[in-house]
Amino acid sequence: MTLKPLSDRVVIKMVEAEETTASGIILTGSAKEKPQVAEVLAVGPGGIVDGKEVVMQVKVGDKVITSKYSGTEVKIDGEDLIVVRQGDILAVVE
Amino acid sequence: MTLKPLSDRVVIKMVEAEETTASGIILTGSAKEKPQVAEVLAVGPGGIVDGKEVVMQVKVGDKVITSKYSGTEVKIDGEDLIVVRQGDILAVVE
Amino acid sequence: MTLKPLSDRVVIKMVEAEETTASGIILTGSAKEKPQVAEVLAVGPGGIVDGKEVVMQVKVGDKVITSKYSGTEVKIDGEDLIVVRQGDILAVVE
Amino acid sequence: MTLKPLSDRVVIKMVEAEETTASGIILTGSAKEKPQVAEVLAVGPGGIVDGKEVVMQVKVGDKVITSKYSGTEVKIDGEDLIVVRQGDILAVVE
Amino acid sequence: MTLKPLSDRVVIKMVEAEETTASGIILTGSAKEKPQVAEVLAVGPGGIVDGKEVVMQVKVGDKVITSKYSGTEVKIDGEDLIVVRQGDILAVVE
Amino acid sequence: MTLKPLSDRVVIKMVEAEETTASGIILTGSAKEKPQVAEVLAVGPGGIVDGKEVVMQVKVGDKVITSKYSGTEVKIDGEDLIVVRQGDILAVVE
Amino acid sequence: MTLKPLSDRVVIKMVEAEETTASGIILTGSAKEKPQVAEVLAVGPGGIVDGKEVVMQVKVGDKVITSKYSGTEVKIDGEDLIVVRQGDILAVVE
Repeated sequence: MTLKPLSDRVVIKMVEAEETTASGIILTGSAKEKPQVAEVLAVGPGGIVDGKEVVMQVKVGDKVITSKYSGTEVKIDGEDLIVVRQGDILAVVE
Repeated sequence: MTLKPLSDRVVIKMVEAEETTASGIILTGSAKEKPQVAEVLAVGPGGIVDGKEVVMQVKVGDKVITSKYSGTEVKIDGEDLIVVRQGDILAVVE
Repeated sequence: MTLKPLSDRVVIKMVEAEETTASGIILTGSAKEKPQVAEVLAVGPGGIVDGKEVVMQVKVGDKVITSKYSGTEVKIDGEDLIVVRQGDILAVVE
Repeated sequence: MTLKPLSDRVVIKMVEAEETTASGIILTGSAKEKPQVAEVLAVGPGGIVDGKEVVMQVKVGDKVITSKYSGTEVKIDGEDLIVVRQGDILAVVE
Repeated sequence: MTLKPLSDRVVIKMVEAEETTASGIILTGSAKEKPQVAEVLAVGPGGIVDGKEVVMQVKVGDKVITSKYSGTEVKIDGEDLIVVRQGDILAVVE
Repeated sequence: MTLKPLSDRVVIKMVEAEETTASGIILTGSAKEKPQVAEVLAVGPGGIVDGKEVVMQVKVGDKVITSKYSGTEVKIDGEDLIVVRQGDILAVVE
Repeated sequence: MTLKPLSDRVVIKMVEAEETTASGIILTGSAKEKPQVAEVLAVGPGGIVDGKEVVMQVKVGDKVITSKYSGTEVKIDGEDLIVVRQGDILAVVE
């Protein structure tokens, strides 16, 4: 079962702190602050959104940083996913 | 008796938790959180909405996820329906 | 005495619960929730509204569902009418 | 002494409840609710307003219904007038 | 020392109640409500404002009515002036 | 060390009350209200700002009046400067 | 590990007070106010943002001043970085 996001939306999944530390990222792991690095699981088609052309700039597998509190959380097949607009993605982590 | 939504609106009906679990989706079934998967019952014609061309991307029968709290609830023939704008639909579930 | 709505406005009148039940619609008839089905009494000419072309999609006699709390109530010849923008009409009931 | 409204503004004067009753309109005459039928005293030239072409659709002498609380009250020569934008006029009463 | 307003701004000075009464205007002279008739002292050049062409419609010497609370008060050479956008001017008094 | 403002921004410095009095301006010198006359120290290049062409209309050395509370204060080389958008400048004082 | 900002975003890092003093900038070093001078570490590609063409005007290595409280803080490889939109950058310090 998969999610196919509409328009400029992107499905992401927060990356666990352990994994990201392995990659060299040091995350503030306090319970109050949620991790900010996520992996892209699905990407919408882009196109005309609110009357403006949007070209998708992220792809499945990208590690990204998003604005905190952006997006809508959804649980699919036991996984906690987040659906965000591409505009809520700040940067790709390489 | 049916609803014919105007412009970019879509009539949806929340899918019961039992049914979705059968499909493999695990929903947070607490009373506080309403299920997020819905079935599309009717789709507006799209066209010029707020001066911008909107092409409808969902069709009757699609299972979709919407922003929580979006849309207007209405009871027709004993069914609880919700009328949302297509822009409130985050993703199609396949 | 009649109302001629300007631009994209529509004059509607809530349909009584009895009448709608006869048509098969079950309305939540609690005193707290106002009925949501209304009949269209007059339709504005549309045209350029806020710099955007609006084509009227409802006609006199249509039964429609509107967003709750939308529009302005007015009493004309003893009737409680509501003037809404067409954009506040969610769907036509057939 | 007269008011010449700018752009899409219209000068109106609330019609007294007695007069409107004579015309067959029944107004909710409670002290809490102000009458909603007004007569148009002056009409601005329209033209480009906020970058959008506005064509004036009301004329001096029209009886109109406006959104409550819209406009700015002003007292000229002892008369209580209201200056509204044409967009705050809902309908013409005939 | 003079003020040269930028873009669509207009420098006005509230007209004293005595003077306006002489002209036949009856102002609500309570201490709570400030007089609404002002004289235009300087007019900006108009032009492109927020990406939209604005043509100035008032001229120095005009008596105007503005939205209450609009504009910025400034004291120049002992005079209390107000700088408003032309869009805050409702009407010219003649 | 100098500031080069981006796009439609302007760097200004409030003019001391003594100096302005010498020029004939009477400022409300209470501690609660900050002086409103400022000198322009640097001007951005203008150009496309938020998708709209902005032509800069002030130049270095201009004395200007700005909206109170607009802009961002910054301390450079011991001087208290303010960075405002040109749109926050109401008028040039001559 | 590096951040590649999307669209009109810029990754910056606040410059330590000691360093900036060496350059002649006097910063208000109180604990309540965060330093306002930052160094640009990465610059997005610009392009169409919200339907409007954005040309990037800052480059890696620039010292910039940003609006306080703008941007999203992120910790990468132990460094506290901030991702801002170019529009939040007020000026380049030279």
